[in-house]
Amino acid sequence: MNDETARSWAYLAAVAEPPCASLIALVDELGPVDAATAIRRRSVPDAHRAVLAVTEARAATDTAVGDMERCAETGARLVTRDDADWPTWQLLALDRAETAQRGGAPLALWVRGPASLTAVADAAIALVGSRASSAYGEHVARDMAGGLVDQGWAVVSGGAYGIDGAAHRGALGAHGVTAAVLACGIDRDYPSGHAALLAEIAATGLVISEYPPGTGAAKHRFLTRNRLVAALSSAVVVVEAGRRSGAANTAAWAARTGRPLGAVPGPVTSATSVGANAMIADGDAALVADAAAAVSLAAPDGRDHRPEVRSRRTDGLPPDRLRVLEALPARGTSTVDEIAFTAGLPPSEVLAALAALDLAGLVDGVDGAWRLDR
Amino acid sequence: MNDETARSWAYLAAVAEPPCASLIALVDELGPVDAATAIRRRSVPDAHRAVLAVTEARAATDTAVGDMERCAETGARLVTRDDADWPTWQLLALDRAETAQRGGAPLALWVRGPASLTAVADAAIALVGSRASSAYGEHVARDMAGGLVDQGWAVVSGGAYGIDGAAHRGALGAHGVTAAVLACGIDRDYPSGHAALLAEIAATGLVISEYPPGTGAAKHRFLTRNRLVAALSSAVVVVEAGRRSGAANTAAWAARTGRPLGAVPGPVTSATSVGANAMIADGDAALVADAAAAVSLAAPDGRDHRPEVRSRRTDGLPPDRLRVLEALPARGTSTVDEIAFTAGLPPSEVLAALAALDLAGLVDGVDGAWRLDR
Repeated sequence: MNDETARSWAYLAAVAEPPCASLIALVDELGPVDAATAIRRRSVPDAHRAVLAVTEARAATDTAVGDMERCAETGARLVTRDDADWPTWQLLALDRAETAQRGGAPLALWVRGPASLTAVADAAIALVGSRASSAYGEHVARDMAGGLVDQGWAVVSGGAYGIDGAAHRGALGAHGVTAAVLACGIDRDYPSGHAALLAEIAATGLVISEYPPGTGAAKHRFLTRNRLVAALSSAVVVVEAGRRSGAANTAAWAARTGRPLGAVPGPVTSATSVGANAMIADGDAALVADAAAAVSLAAPDGRDHRPEVRSRRTDGLPPDRLRVLEALPARGTSTVDEIAFTAGLPPSEVLAALAALDLAGLVDGVDGAWRLDR
Repeated sequence: MNDETARSWAYLAAVAEPPCASLIALVDELGPVDAATAIRRRSVPDAHRAVLAVTEARAATDTAVGDMERCAETGARLVTRDDADWPTWQLLALDRAETAQRGGAPLALWVRGPASLTAVADAAIALVGSRASSAYGEHVARDMAGGLVDQGWAVVSGGAYGIDGAAHRGALGAHGVTAAVLACGIDRDYPSGHAALLAEIAATGLVISEYPPGTGAAKHRFLTRNRLVAALSSAVVVVEAGRRSGAANTAAWAARTGRPLGAVPGPVTSATSVGANAMIADGDAALVADAAAAVSLAAPDGRDHRPEVRSRRTDGLPPDRLRVLEALPARGTSTVDEIAFTAGLPPSEVLAALAALDLAGLVDGVDGAWRLDR
């Protein structure tokens, strides 16, 4: 990536409050450099006029250089949709119609730490819960995070006090990888009492944010952040949640992104377990009693869902081909019509995508049906 | 009931180890007096020869008079299948093929206490659980029993230490009706430490047993007893159970008798909640957090399932008519074919039963379909 491209991405990553579908559409069409120029000049193709309103407030204030400097000082980097380390497959879940309405895919992510974003997202389970947690909830979060690490999983959470913090600490204590997705810039220590914890996470895992350096936490950003916690994980487990808890929002994102949802039961006499127990009682969440149950939720086959697909370089694939690839079963074959139904694409497009995927060695045609190429 | 009939019932209630389907079949055909005579004389109709083997050990030892005296001393009575206070409708669940194989309906029940057996069985919820309970489980059992009583339900349990005792005490503390189903004679204080509790239960509710006075508790009788706990209740809630608990057997009886099963979740760190949490995790039990949830399980419509049926005198109805009545929906109508399917009876028999039930004012024919007569 040359300097101009990097500066353009940094500009684009700050010019609209994410998530911003119209900005992504413009960048997809023009590329980052021309998209940034078009926005600066307030001159975009007619089909993309929606992007003018959402960038109006910030278009003239180019914070790119400052953000990049701050990013470098913090030891962070900007990972974009064009990057090889972009978790395309996982973030595809945010492109789906119902999900996109409430908050689509991110344009780019600021990340701080040595871990690879795709490596984390390939095998991560989210442990979330109330800030107002009990000793029981914190014990379970720590213990379950340690168990997940022992089984080779990364632990994703929100870096908050309470359950989030206990989950991160449990993963760190077991010498595992953990990722904190923040609702503020990656250079902000929020909450301030977690400054040391966030530094420790960034030393071995990842601190992740959709927001440019310096951005302060805000209520709507917590809700937006929660969708990334779900999308970057293969399952979401609510460890402890009271009647009204932010964890319920992350749980809703699990449903929207198609991630299995689990909840840890607690005493019916405990106010901090009312929400988690209710999710189980209502059939929204599976009861998860330990790390093994969380893993079963994330990988029902007793192994990673589609390791063959994940371990290949699928980053450069256009979204439609990825959707077709995602629609193929982990084992066995599917017909074109079945794939079209699962992917929600016309059979003619599915056929074209399959032909391209076949050439790329990702799928095999067998007796008129298709399967993943192992 | 004249003295000879009463003596015959007492003889029959002791002459075979219950449950005993062949004995019930004989009594249904000959009536109690002739059935008792036939067994004493070792001379039964050919179709009933199976009853000879199961009564062989006890046929010559007539304990009827002694049992009746002991029963009177204890302030108890023998309720038989011919009695108006027999909970025919509920015990029908034990006549079903799969259930009957493992333990069919009882021939008679010894009961001690002022409550009516049918009144208890009309609106009862079983709260069961481990003898090795925690303070948490006992607290929840007491609290939930009190809540059930407040909503007009009786609490059925097994009179054991731990959760059973806490459930009985919670019901008594709320001035409600509770019934203890024992695995020994109603005159035996088992466990001995519950002598005062059983006396208290018998003072306002019911102590129930299938076994004649003086019978000692035995392992197989606990399992046999558990089927009555489930059958006499509209739902079974496991309050606390470890990995291996007798509560699992009662839970299995809930499934066999078609009673909804609930379980109270507990800390995943608590050995005494492992069984209850597992029942929820495996989808065998609904998560029940309070008395209201237990009531919803027992009466999903927010009220008693079929109060119209229950409040009528259905005791004298032959089993087939009861099955037809039971197969009708609480609201709306069913066709003869639908009723036949639900009841598992040929349409011709269903039609005959419906005609009789119509005459008795229990059902209405509407536009070629049938509904309960309100």
